[in-house]
Amino acid sequence: MFLQNHWYAAALTEEIGSEPFGRTICGEAIVLFRTGTGALAALEDRCAHRHAPLSLGEVRDGVIECGYHGLRFDGSGRCVHIPGQGNIPPRAKVRAYPSVDRHGWVWVWIGDPAQADERAIPDFHWFGDPQWAGFQLYFHVDAAAQLFVDNLLDLSHVAFTHKASIGSAAAADAPVALDVTVHADRIEGRRALKDVDPGPFVAGWGDFKGNIDRTSTYVWRPPSHMQVQAEFEDATTRITVMVINPITPETETTAHFWMGWARDFCVGDTALTDKAREENTQVILEDLRIIEAQQRIMTARPDVDAVPINADKAVLAVHKELGRLFAAQDKERT
Amino acid sequence: MFLQNHWYAAALTEEIGSEPFGRTICGEAIVLFRTGTGALAALEDRCAHRHAPLSLGEVRDGVIECGYHGLRFDGSGRCVHIPGQGNIPPRAKVRAYPSVDRHGWVWVWIGDPAQADERAIPDFHWFGDPQWAGFQLYFHVDAAAQLFVDNLLDLSHVAFTHKASIGSAAAADAPVALDVTVHADRIEGRRALKDVDPGPFVAGWGDFKGNIDRTSTYVWRPPSHMQVQAEFEDATTRITVMVINPITPETETTAHFWMGWARDFCVGDTALTDKAREENTQVILEDLRIIEAQQRIMTARPDVDAVPINADKAVLAVHKELGRLFAAQDKERT
Amino acid sequence: MFLQNHWYAAALTEEIGSEPFGRTICGEAIVLFRTGTGALAALEDRCAHRHAPLSLGEVRDGVIECGYHGLRFDGSGRCVHIPGQGNIPPRAKVRAYPSVDRHGWVWVWIGDPAQADERAIPDFHWFGDPQWAGFQLYFHVDAAAQLFVDNLLDLSHVAFTHKASIGSAAAADAPVALDVTVHADRIEGRRALKDVDPGPFVAGWGDFKGNIDRTSTYVWRPPSHMQVQAEFEDATTRITVMVINPITPETETTAHFWMGWARDFCVGDTALTDKAREENTQVILEDLRIIEAQQRIMTARPDVDAVPINADKAVLAVHKELGRLFAAQDKERT
Repeated sequence: MFLQNHWYAAALTEEIGSEPFGRTICGEAIVLFRTGTGALAALEDRCAHRHAPLSLGEVRDGVIECGYHGLRFDGSGRCVHIPGQGNIPPRAKVRAYPSVDRHGWVWVWIGDPAQADERAIPDFHWFGDPQWAGFQLYFHVDAAAQLFVDNLLDLSHVAFTHKASIGSAAAADAPVALDVTVHADRIEGRRALKDVDPGPFVAGWGDFKGNIDRTSTYVWRPPSHMQVQAEFEDATTRITVMVINPITPETETTAHFWMGWARDFCVGDTALTDKAREENTQVILEDLRIIEAQQRIMTARPDVDAVPINADKAVLAVHKELGRLFAAQDKERT
Repeated sequence: MFLQNHWYAAALTEEIGSEPFGRTICGEAIVLFRTGTGALAALEDRCAHRHAPLSLGEVRDGVIECGYHGLRFDGSGRCVHIPGQGNIPPRAKVRAYPSVDRHGWVWVWIGDPAQADERAIPDFHWFGDPQWAGFQLYFHVDAAAQLFVDNLLDLSHVAFTHKASIGSAAAADAPVALDVTVHADRIEGRRALKDVDPGPFVAGWGDFKGNIDRTSTYVWRPPSHMQVQAEFEDATTRITVMVINPITPETETTAHFWMGWARDFCVGDTALTDKAREENTQVILEDLRIIEAQQRIMTARPDVDAVPINADKAVLAVHKELGRLFAAQDKERT
Repeated sequence: MFLQNHWYAAALTEEIGSEPFGRTICGEAIVLFRTGTGALAALEDRCAHRHAPLSLGEVRDGVIECGYHGLRFDGSGRCVHIPGQGNIPPRAKVRAYPSVDRHGWVWVWIGDPAQADERAIPDFHWFGDPQWAGFQLYFHVDAAAQLFVDNLLDLSHVAFTHKASIGSAAAADAPVALDVTVHADRIEGRRALKDVDPGPFVAGWGDFKGNIDRTSTYVWRPPSHMQVQAEFEDATTRITVMVINPITPETETTAHFWMGWARDFCVGDTALTDKAREENTQVILEDLRIIEAQQRIMTARPDVDAVPINADKAVLAVHKELGRLFAAQDKERT
């Protein structure tokens, strides 16, 4: 079960060019490509004729041609050519999905196309903004998308899961001063640590000589888009990192994850970007190790109950909101 | 569900020697070996004692000896020796399958042994005939046997799936002039292309300087044996290639495929044979890429309907005949 | 279905140190570690908070700390620390298993902890005894534990499965002189071969010049612990090898197997130990090849019946006893 009538990140804008690109989103196999005008198209990744994936075909003259028997479909999913045959049967069409390039990602609307509204795409404007520098990286996740959302909603894991990279021992037992605010369209949490060791990575970024204050503001937006604003400051310096993580279910137990990372300091320092890319890759691999193991246990023992702790405040608020959204979706369907 | 009471290709004759050879056919695990006289034997690949596969044993004195506790079975499936024990329990036997070497293949009869008739083995006499030269290659297929049959029944795919090898752009939009004839024991289709680019491979075979006429006659015989007679000619030259593809279900979604290829030109040219073997391997790998992806989609979405096109004429005729054969089989069982 | 209220071997004592060690036993994921005093602990391998495996965490101050959010559990499974939080919810606990180091293995009690009695651990005292020399090796098995038990209960397989190593052709047709005795707590079998070729390995061990007598006494103890006492003698020499194989179900179709091997001859000869380790590894791999194939067939065809032979006397006695034990277990549960 996936939340319908939402935009999901599907790929990086730069990944979609003249070659068809296949990706499964919320259990639906989709092919992305660009039509003759460069416009995005997102179709069901299955030829109406004999079910070969269109992503194994090629884009010709702005339409996608099946690699099996050469049927062609335009960006609306309509069959526009059948080799050696003049008439096109009306049933020869595939489902089309609304799709938009925005902030470096390709977004695909899962649900009723008539309800797709581009204004609902989250404002992740830091990518492409010259005041900011960073990168966008993709990771495949062998765990449900929600498990990675939960991971990011409870940053108390940083001291443990990431002790070899961005975690700091001092933070491990810091009281969890967490403010969670539920808004109509999002849930926000805030965690502030005062006078803590910045850890080896952050110390380098801000040229911090001693302890710092560290504030993390995270925003969850349905279905599973995460944004963390991390601020690091001492008496003289304050730096901000935006960590943007669209998380898209592939299946019930696998997901697509992007690490969008942007900073407002040392913007021209490409070496810093390279180092941050490398460091964040390590961090994500540390998360995947835990989350994918967690999924394996949950798959083997679907009956076990979680025991909530104080640090779960934001997790529980999001789960409650998801429960509300799924209940509304179920009601609408019946 | 598989068609019973048919011969299925099981291996190449040259593959069956003094070592047991295990292969699953129509969901039945079978071990092939040769008895003391060199005669073929095909038995259930499971020792009656404790279920170890006989194919892990060895052939001794013309019978097969289980590699676990040494029980021996003759070519009829009867247990003829139990180590350290004089009497043989009557239940100590395994199923035997009629099997025949013919035209370079080993054929195994799936169904009621009493009905096995060697005359029903298709006449693929081009292998071993000195007027013809070629080869027989095996490929494992991660898709249902019928998907490869369908592939071969609709050669309009050649222009697309094989555009990097034997396909030609000119053929892509050729009108599908297809004659399909339903016979009592087979279905034949014929597709003729006039004045087309031979493509890089064929041009070399016939030393064709310009366009050619290209006629493909294909014959389907139940359960899933394909024969294509490909004729290439211009004003001065006419060459024939026989492409023989026995296709045998392994399971409902995997298959065994053989590419038997024989030509009536340049018969002594072993370099041409080597090149054709290499080229055909490329062609089959191109087919597998599509067919196996098609199977993955059909497995994930068993509910989707195909939309037939004109080029499916032979495919539809074969599916209709298969429907008739399966219905008759079901009726007989009840 | 696994036999409850039994000790199962879980690991080698030397494997459990300062790092958590995860292993699934009888379908239950367990983490082993040593507390501050060096005492063994065996807990459910799942943090009560969010299901991350505790085996991905680390041992700190004698308790195990989850690698996700830092919760700590002591050897009794009680949560003793939640970062940033004073109170511990009563439900924050995980299951603890009785566990004991004995004879070089770690033993874990599966079933009701109140019934665990260390005296029920089998007496495999040859490991650590200075009169004996040998080794203990671990193998993962892709087959049910019972299939390996059955293998060891019928040593008539040695002549066939191990013909390339410890088997001898002469033994292949030796009459199966098998005495099977059913005791209250174990089943014993005895197989004696007179005047047989020792085979290449054994000849070297005893410096035997000609044929020998060979006696194998095997003992099965529930749930699946095997002991074989192999005696090899000629007129002048008698040597004994103890082969100890605790076999532990991992899942219904996979298992953990240990080859404990101890001898009472050439005790100081480390080269002999090295060679025996190498030879036994070859022997076990020969067994795995057959047993894992046997499991694949039994999984594919759960309906097939075995046909017993004379050599199965001990196997059948053990199966009968297991039937009795499982029936008693079922009765107790209802």
